[in-house]
Amino acid sequence: MQIPFLQMQDVLCKLFIKYQFVDEKAKFMAKVFSENTLDGVNSHGINRVPLFIKYVEDGIVKVDAEAEKMEAFGSIERWDGHFGPGIINASKCTNRAIELAKLHGMGLVALRNTNHWMRGGAYGWQSADAGCISILFTNTQPNMPPWGGKHSRIGNNPFIVSIPRKQGHIVLDMAISQFAFGKINDYKLRGEKLPFHGGWDENDELSNDPEKISLHERGLPIGYWKGSALSIILDMLATLLSAGDSTYKIGSKKYETGISQVYLCIYPELFNDTELQEKLLNEIIGYTHDVEPMKPGGKTYYPGERTLQTRTRNLKNGIPVHEGVWQKVLELLEPV
Amino acid sequence: MQIPFLQMQDVLCKLFIKYQFVDEKAKFMAKVFSENTLDGVNSHGINRVPLFIKYVEDGIVKVDAEAEKMEAFGSIERWDGHFGPGIINASKCTNRAIELAKLHGMGLVALRNTNHWMRGGAYGWQSADAGCISILFTNTQPNMPPWGGKHSRIGNNPFIVSIPRKQGHIVLDMAISQFAFGKINDYKLRGEKLPFHGGWDENDELSNDPEKISLHERGLPIGYWKGSALSIILDMLATLLSAGDSTYKIGSKKYETGISQVYLCIYPELFNDTELQEKLLNEIIGYTHDVEPMKPGGKTYYPGERTLQTRTRNLKNGIPVHEGVWQKVLELLEPV
Repeated sequence: MQIPFLQMQDVLCKLFIKYQFVDEKAKFMAKVFSENTLDGVNSHGINRVPLFIKYVEDGIVKVDAEAEKMEAFGSIERWDGHFGPGIINASKCTNRAIELAKLHGMGLVALRNTNHWMRGGAYGWQSADAGCISILFTNTQPNMPPWGGKHSRIGNNPFIVSIPRKQGHIVLDMAISQFAFGKINDYKLRGEKLPFHGGWDENDELSNDPEKISLHERGLPIGYWKGSALSIILDMLATLLSAGDSTYKIGSKKYETGISQVYLCIYPELFNDTELQEKLLNEIIGYTHDVEPMKPGGKTYYPGERTLQTRTRNLKNGIPVHEGVWQKVLELLEPV
Repeated sequence: MQIPFLQMQDVLCKLFIKYQFVDEKAKFMAKVFSENTLDGVNSHGINRVPLFIKYVEDGIVKVDAEAEKMEAFGSIERWDGHFGPGIINASKCTNRAIELAKLHGMGLVALRNTNHWMRGGAYGWQSADAGCISILFTNTQPNMPPWGGKHSRIGNNPFIVSIPRKQGHIVLDMAISQFAFGKINDYKLRGEKLPFHGGWDENDELSNDPEKISLHERGLPIGYWKGSALSIILDMLATLLSAGDSTYKIGSKKYETGISQVYLCIYPELFNDTELQEKLLNEIIGYTHDVEPMKPGGKTYYPGERTLQTRTRNLKNGIPVHEGVWQKVLELLEPV
């Protein structure tokens, strides 16, 4: 089914108000969850709302908690999320990193004790809308084995880089896993194999069989040993800069909560050559677009290009949503 | 054969002096080339010396050029490498980013018009030795197809992250390609297949056959479409922050020169909790070490761990060097 953006936002806002969020926060979270879905990331948009509400009910997400500045050294700050909603904390820290970047050229906010930010890319778009480059990352619960090891001890640690651009921002939003577990589940439901290895099977062999990978949560890092090392070092940076919990500590909890994140913004307008910068970006885009496709009819894209296409299409036609998911959300709002 | 570190350094220093480098620069480059080899990265150590000398002879690397600060905004600076030797430029810009980080908490130097920095990790170790976290990257000539495209239009853009640590720094030094072309060549010489896909064959199929991949330089990015996007966005950042040449422009030159790089340092001691930070790092290391191996006798490592082992071994036993390479270097010094 297709749900218009404004309708989704309206329903979610009412839902969050029902669950005791103040109007302003309910409205903002409804906007972000709806935008994530509008951009085609249903897994961290509408599909995730029931789990988010469960975390609220269980007290994992503290409805009233506010992220708080704990330490500040010029362009670098440490914040404590006090286990508030991940979206609110993330957006606040992104705004603070943008402010710091506009003051100092660069700004960094390290956030501890927060909850899942849903789609990390949302804060990449937010930074770019404010004219800032951003480099953002989060740690997570363990869901991939470190290279050479048997059990999941590293996180898929989503990593975002965004660059503002007049004709459409560049936004890279990628987890360090080759496939998200949500994506692996989609293949499973369709009875299809993954196009490449996505994790380990029960015999400790790399597999593209979503059934076998789903049995144990042992995902494959991008680039095998390379992604494994990248995941470890992102966790280290997020943990030590925020003085927060690492994937190790998060893995010892019943729920994924109290995670650590880094928000780094750079303000490129300080160079006063925005036109040159746009020209340089467009040269790179042109060069990678203007290439013979590997397969007939194929195409290359810059990071974020397809997001903009999806956004435009869904704004026009309504957002494709799984009917069962939408029913569940409506029932949370008004139990039958 | 094994060459003692000091002997290699001495020979290289004499060689660089012969090629008109002033004593101080010759000594420093000899140190870095030798350290790269000492750490096991022969491809960007001793093996690369003959090509470096050719670049000097051809005037691609300008012997006397000095990197120069062009613009400065607090913690962010733009430098021009004036086509000087990549090692000298990189080390100078790393030192400047460290200085800025110690002044402002963070420092960023974007460098344009430079030459190959050899082993990017060298500057990660340099930053960590100075007590700084570093995030460093460079663009390169095109050597991988962007995902969906047929021809190489993106670079393998090495990406370095380092974290200082008393018991041994954490240093991630990875190109965005799954395998370096040097590594692919090693497999070819040994008549072995790659353990995973490393590039495209002449039929536009992914291949683990080093013979077939070597025919055309079409490498595979880590994580397929993910590494492709990461490569593009790193090139964009290096290019626009330095106002320098992108992979597009570099690809139009006869040689790989005039590349763009970013040096970002963060000074974690400003938080005055170095002991806590070490404890957090060691927890992460302990958790990823203390895992049952995937294969009997296997082991997991943190980024940089094996480099330290190699360094210790080669300091004791001498540095393993291919005899033909060493002969070539000696002949450059004293033609027969």
